[in-house]
Parts: sequence; C-alpha cells; structure tokens
Amino acid sequence: MARAVDVPALVEQARAGRPRAVARLISLVEDAHPALREVMAALAPHTGNAHVIGITGSPGVGKSTSTSALVKALRARDLRIGVLAVDPSSPFSGGALLGDRVRMQDHALDPGVYIRSMASRGHLGGLSWATPQALRVLDAAGCDVVLVETVGVGQSEVEIAAMADTTLVLLAPGMGDGIQAAKAGILEVGDVFVVNKADRDGADATVRDIRHMISLGESRSPGDWRPPVVKTVASREEGMDELMASLDKHQAWLGETGHLRERRLRRAADEIESIALVQLRERMGDLRHGRGLDELAAQVVDGHQDPYAAADSLVAAVTSDVDHVQ
Amino acid sequence: MARAVDVPALVEQARAGRPRAVARLISLVEDAHPALREVMAALAPHTGNAHVIGITGSPGVGKSTSTSALVKALRARDLRIGVLAVDPSSPFSGGALLGDRVRMQDHALDPGVYIRSMASRGHLGGLSWATPQALRVLDAAGCDVVLVETVGVGQSEVEIAAMADTTLVLLAPGMGDGIQAAKAGILEVGDVFVVNKADRDGADATVRDIRHMISLGESRSPGDWRPPVVKTVASREEGMDELMASLDKHQAWLGETGHLRERRLRRAADEIESIALVQLRERMGDLRHGRGLDELAAQVVDGHQDPYAAADSLVAAVTSDVDHVQ
Repeated sequence: MARAVDVPALVEQARAGRPRAVARLISLVEDAHPALREVMAALAPHTGNAHVIGITGSPGVGKSTSTSALVKALRARDLRIGVLAVDPSSPFSGGALLGDRVRMQDHALDPGVYIRSMASRGHLGGLSWATPQALRVLDAAGCDVVLVETVGVGQSEVEIAAMADTTLVLLAPGMGDGIQAAKAGILEVGDVFVVNKADRDGADATVRDIRHMISLGESRSPGDWRPPVVKTVASREEGMDELMASLDKHQAWLGETGHLRERRLRRAADEIESIALVQLRERMGDLRHGRGLDELAAQVVDGHQDPYAAADSLVAAVTSDVDHVQ
Repeated sequence: MARAVDVPALVEQARAGRPRAVARLISLVEDAHPALREVMAALAPHTGNAHVIGITGSPGVGKSTSTSALVKALRARDLRIGVLAVDPSSPFSGGALLGDRVRMQDHALDPGVYIRSMASRGHLGGLSWATPQALRVLDAAGCDVVLVETVGVGQSEVEIAAMADTTLVLLAPGMGDGIQAAKAGILEVGDVFVVNKADRDGADATVRDIRHMISLGESRSPGDWRPPVVKTVASREEGMDELMASLDKHQAWLGETGHLRERRLRRAADEIESIALVQLRERMGDLRHGRGLDELAAQVVDGHQDPYAAADSLVAAVTSDVDHVQ
C-alpha cells in the first residue's frame, strides 16, 4: 500500500508557498503515485497563470548562469519564480537544490524561488511525460513565471518548446552554433535568441549568422513574431535589460494576437493525448499478462488469423476493458 | 480512389513464384494500401514455413557480401530465398534491385531469389512496422529462408532480432567491434557470431574477445544455446560451410527445444500490439481533426478539467468510436 496522502492539505500548503509541499507534489507526479489523479484534479482550478519560459542550448553556452541571472531580474519585479532543470541524460532527479550549479545557490534561500531538478528518463519515459505535470504544480503553487531549462540534445529542445509559452535559445560565440542551430531545427522553435558570452571574439559574427538564418527561414506575414537576437554576458548580468524587454515583448505579442491561448490549447491537447496513449498501452500490457494476447498470437502463428484481424480483437478487448475500469 | 487490386490473383501469382506479384504485395504493405487487410488475410494460411535469419553488423563488416555468399550456399541446396535489405537511415525504398550492391547482382537473374530493399522511415515509422509484413509476403510466396539484413545502428539490431528466428551478428577484425558489441547489446541478440574478413590481422583476437564476452554474459542452463563464433572471408566464400553448419544447428535447436514457436509467438504478439497501437493512435488523430480533442484541451486550459479526466474522456471517445468502425 502506498502511503496515504492528504491531497487537499498539500495543495493548500503549496499555494501558501511552502516549498516542502511543492516538492512533495512534484514527487507524486514523478512517481506516478496513486494519488496523482486526485492531485491533478485539485490543481486544475488554480492553473493557467504562470508564464512558462523554456531555456535551451548546447552544453557550455551558459544555461544555468543565464537562468540564474534571469531569476534575479524577475525577482527584482517581485515575481514568484519556479525553475525546473530537466536533464535528458540523467537518471537522477529529486527535490535537492542543484548543488553543482553554483550560481543557482544565490537563490537557494529566497522563498520566492522554487528550484527543482528533474530527470527525464523516468520509468514512464521521456521529457514529455512528467514535465508538463510538474509545470502544473508550480503554476498552481502561484509561480508567476516558470523557467524550464534543458540541455539542447536530441529532441529535447523541440519538446521543451512544445511546453513553453516563450522559448529562449542560448548560443555562444565560436561554437559553430549557427550550423548546429540550423541542423537541430532550433531556429523554428526559438522565440528569442541569446548570444551569451558576448564579450568573446566572434559574438557579432554569431549574431549576424543567426539573424541571417532567421531571415532565410522567413515566410512571415505582417504581425508575425520576428525573433530578436540579444547579446548577454550572463556571468556579469550584462544585457539582461534588453533580454527582459524581449521577453516582455513576446509575452505581450502572445496575449494580443491570441497565440498564447493557441499554444496552450495545443499543449493541453498533446498532454491529454499522451496520457490517453499511456493508459491504452498499460491496458494492452495487462492483456499480455492475462494471456489474452498470447492466444491471439498463437492464432496468427498457426495461420488461423492475420495480424490485423488479431489487432481488431485486441483493440476490442482493450476498449471493453476500459468500460469496466473507472 | 485507390486503384482496385485483385488480391486473390496477386497472392496466387506470388505463390507461383512471380517476382512482380511479390513486389506489388510488398508495395501494398509499405504504402499501407486500403487492400492491406485483405492481403494479410489472404496470406495468413500460407505463412509459417520460412526460416527468418537476421543479419546485422556495423558498416564495413561486409554485410552484403556475406548475405550474397549465404544466398549462394542456400541456393546450392535448391532452397527459395528472400532477401530484405532494410536501411534504417534511408528514406528510400522500392522494388528495384540493390544496384549499389555489386555482389547481389550475382543473384539478380536467379528466379529462386527475391531481393528487395526497404526504407525503414516510412510515414508510419520504424523498422518494426512494415518489415514483419514484408516477411509475411515472402513467407507466403514460398521462400524457405528469408534473410533480413540491416546495418547495426541504434536500435535496429534489437528490432531485427525480435523478428528473426536466428540472428547472425557480423564483426570484422580491428574495428573495436568487441567493445561496440558489448555497448550495443548485440551480445544478447546474437545467435551466431561471424568474424568476417578473417584473413586480416587480429581476426583470432576478435574471435577470442567475442568468446570471452559471451562467457562473461553467461548464466546459462544446460541445454541453452551457446552462440558459436565462426570465421569467414565472405568475398572468397571461405568459411561458409562452417557458417551453414552453425545456422543448421541453431535451427535444429530451435525446433527441438520449442524455442522456435516461443520466438514466433512473441513476434506475433509484438506485431499485433503495434498494429493495435497504430489503430488507436489514428483514431485519436481523427478525434483531433474532428475537434473533440480541442474541446477537451479548452476545458483543461480553462481549469475546468485536469488532463487525466480529459484523457479518460478521450479514451472513452476512442473506444466508442472503435465500436462503430468495422
């Protein structure tokens, strides 16, 4: 038996800004705890307020330094901030502060900042599964802005962009990032581009490269968003005003044009769909255990049925099963 | 409208050994043609005879040369042979002979050999989708042995092993293959290991490495299969007798121990399950088009429902839909 959870009390505490309650709720999400559905139902009425900013970039461009500088700038406006650091290569996660991220320790004692690292390879798989639900927890807990930071590897930047209201793509001079950007398709997902470490040689060339590639990719109508390219030196908090102005501008554009709601509808549809698929897959797994699938497989191996007819039977079994499970 | 297909006539012609009919049936599979179900139903009674041999290995180990030498050795026994060359990196496929594979042209005019290249990145995605059904076509067309060749990249060797009765892993001296093998997990999937290009320096060391790693991985019971390691020089057809003997031995072992049926049952179960998932996914896609999902997404964005409750509704809609679609 799983430990009983007083969900209403936890949600109330989280909304009152108690970090432990927030941590516990995110853990329930990550563990796919039996109380997960109750948690999600209790959070639902309180969601939709947080602006979600995705932050991605190759290793070494200064993601956590930039995230820290952004947290500081946002805190200067007295906003409540959540930070989710998602590591697509790590099997580890937890409520611990990111001890290896020195800059983030500036905010460790700030009650207006909640920081959490998450592994993406949970037993239910993928960045896309637990992260949107952790976002919901932070949103319902009253965060005004949630920063989701992930290393730009494989599909992770595309996944993060699908979850964010605003996607910030970080680059650094002299890393061949221009080409990397084009390859990885981050040009399509970036709403704001940041050339960090702009005190290094080649910063202006990198800015030009990105601007050029943005213009190449353009088939924009008037009123479309044109991603700005901002130079920063996050370690010295240089360029943060311009970056904040770009983020504000994008947020305003999203609201005025109806794109905010459009993005969120698409995000919710993706989330619903992936939960539904997991449920159907689990039911199939149950059937496999229950040997129903074994009998169908034997029919196919013996040539009495073809795999499509067998799949029809499987779908029928899954769906009739659904009617019995509440 | 899709072009009408006379499925019974096609199947009859394929069973009579007409290459064009075989090619057309595999194309119907690859294109997910509306007649696909009828094709699969018509093939089902004629399947289960072909022994499926998967052939995998890193680029440069001599896969197509080895496949060609194997085809020659099998043809000497007057067996009918099918060859599926699956390229997991290529978006192209077709009925054309593999023009770039010089050795395979030895068999281009042999009516007892059917050769087909397949792309794995079809619009329905993955090695795992179309390949098992192409195997069914070749099986029903009377092939005694089907060789499925794929480059060992990513998950492809694991996927191929899941489809094969016997999996042959090719290596070559001096490519650090021992370590590669351990990393990629091909030690677990290989039933027979072949060190090809065995006239090169280091062949014996490679054989020793593989044998050593096999013995390390062993927690075998008496009667379990112990993968042999065979040396060949496929370009000169050296070592083919020993390789054929190993393949015969494995086939005999599979039959005697009941593992053949076990593997085929598991393969059929995987196939049924993946077809069922594709069907359910398609129905969800239809709902997305039909705006049913959009309404659920709006409920979630507005905080009136949580994503789990919405997913329940989606699952219910998908399953009731299933009852109406035959």
